[in-house]
Amino acid sequence: MMPVINAKRLIERLHALGQTGRHEGTLTRLAAGDADKAGRDLLCAWMQEAGLEIGIDRIGNIIGRWDPDGVSGAPVVMGSHIDTVIDAGIYDGCYGVLSGLSVIEALKGSGTRIGRPIAVVAFTNEEGVRFAPDMMGSLVVAGGLETDGALATVGTDGETLGNELRRIGYAGQLDPMDLRPHAYVELHVEQGPVLEAEGVNLGAVDTLQGISWQRIVIDGTANHAGTTPMRLRLDAGVAAAQITAALDGLARAMPGAVATVGTMRFVPNAINVIPSRATFTVDLRHPDEARLQQLEQDLALLLDGLRANGYLVSAERLARFEPVLFDQDIVEKIETAATARQIGCRRMTSGAGHDAQMMARVCPSAMLFVPSKGGISHNPQEFTEERDLIAGAEVLMDVVRGLCA
Amino acid sequence: MMPVINAKRLIERLHALGQTGRHEGTLTRLAAGDADKAGRDLLCAWMQEAGLEIGIDRIGNIIGRWDPDGVSGAPVVMGSHIDTVIDAGIYDGCYGVLSGLSVIEALKGSGTRIGRPIAVVAFTNEEGVRFAPDMMGSLVVAGGLETDGALATVGTDGETLGNELRRIGYAGQLDPMDLRPHAYVELHVEQGPVLEAEGVNLGAVDTLQGISWQRIVIDGTANHAGTTPMRLRLDAGVAAAQITAALDGLARAMPGAVATVGTMRFVPNAINVIPSRATFTVDLRHPDEARLQQLEQDLALLLDGLRANGYLVSAERLARFEPVLFDQDIVEKIETAATARQIGCRRMTSGAGHDAQMMARVCPSAMLFVPSKGGISHNPQEFTEERDLIAGAEVLMDVVRGLCA
Repeated sequence: MMPVINAKRLIERLHALGQTGRHEGTLTRLAAGDADKAGRDLLCAWMQEAGLEIGIDRIGNIIGRWDPDGVSGAPVVMGSHIDTVIDAGIYDGCYGVLSGLSVIEALKGSGTRIGRPIAVVAFTNEEGVRFAPDMMGSLVVAGGLETDGALATVGTDGETLGNELRRIGYAGQLDPMDLRPHAYVELHVEQGPVLEAEGVNLGAVDTLQGISWQRIVIDGTANHAGTTPMRLRLDAGVAAAQITAALDGLARAMPGAVATVGTMRFVPNAINVIPSRATFTVDLRHPDEARLQQLEQDLALLLDGLRANGYLVSAERLARFEPVLFDQDIVEKIETAATARQIGCRRMTSGAGHDAQMMARVCPSAMLFVPSKGGISHNPQEFTEERDLIAGAEVLMDVVRGLCA
Repeated sequence: MMPVINAKRLIERLHALGQTGRHEGTLTRLAAGDADKAGRDLLCAWMQEAGLEIGIDRIGNIIGRWDPDGVSGAPVVMGSHIDTVIDAGIYDGCYGVLSGLSVIEALKGSGTRIGRPIAVVAFTNEEGVRFAPDMMGSLVVAGGLETDGALATVGTDGETLGNELRRIGYAGQLDPMDLRPHAYVELHVEQGPVLEAEGVNLGAVDTLQGISWQRIVIDGTANHAGTTPMRLRLDAGVAAAQITAALDGLARAMPGAVATVGTMRFVPNAINVIPSRATFTVDLRHPDEARLQQLEQDLALLLDGLRANGYLVSAERLARFEPVLFDQDIVEKIETAATARQIGCRRMTSGAGHDAQMMARVCPSAMLFVPSKGGISHNPQEFTEERDLIAGAEVLMDVVRGLCA
């Protein structure tokens, strides 16, 4: 019997999980809060229904494992997370977890023979809204953060993650670092407009961009806008504008690069006063570490140019992640599976961070993207067509089946 | 006997007037408030001491007139204002009024024969902090605003100017438009860094810049900073930055022009979101109307370029004043007087607005500037050296003497 994804059940579960943490029409399911408990309980009930062995590790990651008799070795793991941002959509994270569950159900229900255990995991605190850093559950699994340190993290509301996990009943006994998969595959909505814009239904994610965030402060000299000749000015606003425009040009000239100045503040911010200070953030991303470093150097040179002209300039690093190169073999398996099902597929880069980037440190990993309407994410408007959701789960199933053959 | 400015008295009066409206070390003397009454009372007492005939017009302008027997004709008028901004320095406005008084005292005391009456005026509400518009007293004199309309103006605290003038005892009987000087000369601190930077002690102000203020709103599209390729972006922040940098370049390329983007706001102003909206102000100034219009057209073209690229752009006019060309004859008299006293003098433009620009509508007018340390004004740090203050008053005296010969 051919394994088939139960499309209706997958969609119904997405909507049911999207009702937990909903308050006055708004969906918010922050890590280790009451709404997260409701979502976790629902997920565990479904895993139990599916006959999975449920394990909870010390950082609260939920692992649902199908471990048929006579099958051994490290599991092939699918997953993502079910915590959300504030005022979220219903797909982000949840789709990856529920698709993984659907895949196991389909394989199990069809009597498919597998050569390894298969598991689906919901990682704790991927969003990082309540507890920093984000991608915390997978980071701990990957050994990038001590479990005890992560549990001691104080949230925005003053509670520690450890206490909150105990309170909601999800402080487990397993050692997070015991999860060492044979391979990890994460299915996710794109959170960007590329697939939709190109009319392609599946992305085989072969890289995850490196991210460099900096806060720049430029100090010039405030002065009267009418009486200060141009040659006597040290206009911090103009300096910030030149950097903003130049970064845009640099990113456009380098294939694969993106650069964004998302925040900007002038001081004193008065119509007839030359700005004395401009504070802004720079978000640089590239899938290739050398290129990302090139962009950072270009920015540093631009800032040095301002210093040479008399400005005081400081740059503070806010975040820095190296790019991730996903496993070529899994990426090829994704492409092959998509082609076999006649689903349009392209290789692509993930611009956002995902649990898969942490898992890539400990096992061969890759991701699949399905289109996201308008590229909207972290927003109630987030939407993916059902046929794309199902097609993504089917390709995931084919890939996992191949990985545990 | 040669007329001589009483330097000690002028300086002492500047400091004494600078004490009225001082509260916990901060000087604030808003138009027609209690502090303004205290300053007006002090000024009138000094005018009385000097034997001047004091007149108050309906808008509260105070005119102190020296009208020797047998002398007739329209008066030569000096003046400025004694209201201040919030947290002001002691020079702005007051220096012009007190110097005018000193000039009359010097001429009178030395028995100098004059061919016309001489007067000094303190105009009501030049700063416009409490009541809009600014330069109100001189605007009413020049016929640019009806007296009754001006008196009905509601201040930031809900009181009308008319009621407040009555309350403090400065609602006079004279018709403001009856003041039709033979000539008007205003001495002021520069409020800019030009004289200090060039080591010149006097400015003969031959023009007053035209001013064009606009508020620009650029709407693009918000999107994920990591997942939206550069070619699919409509980044309102980058568009605003390009305009800001381009305006700076345009002003630098046009002698006499200044351009300032003083305020800037991004929406949503988040580090990893492409700005959907940028709102900013543009302050353009030039002493020549055709050049100012050229700058406005250049800006309009830049905005049209954005529209052609898909942005929604709106531009709202916030203020517009045509440039003022001061009286060439008076300007030459200023230069001649400065040269005769071996005081370094240069012609210059006023970047700020002054009562003289209103008086220029009704009589030959010009201004003298003395250096201002660091170009700082509207600020407790405002400072001009005593020798520069005295030199300015001396040149003013010589010019006025010539004008009423």
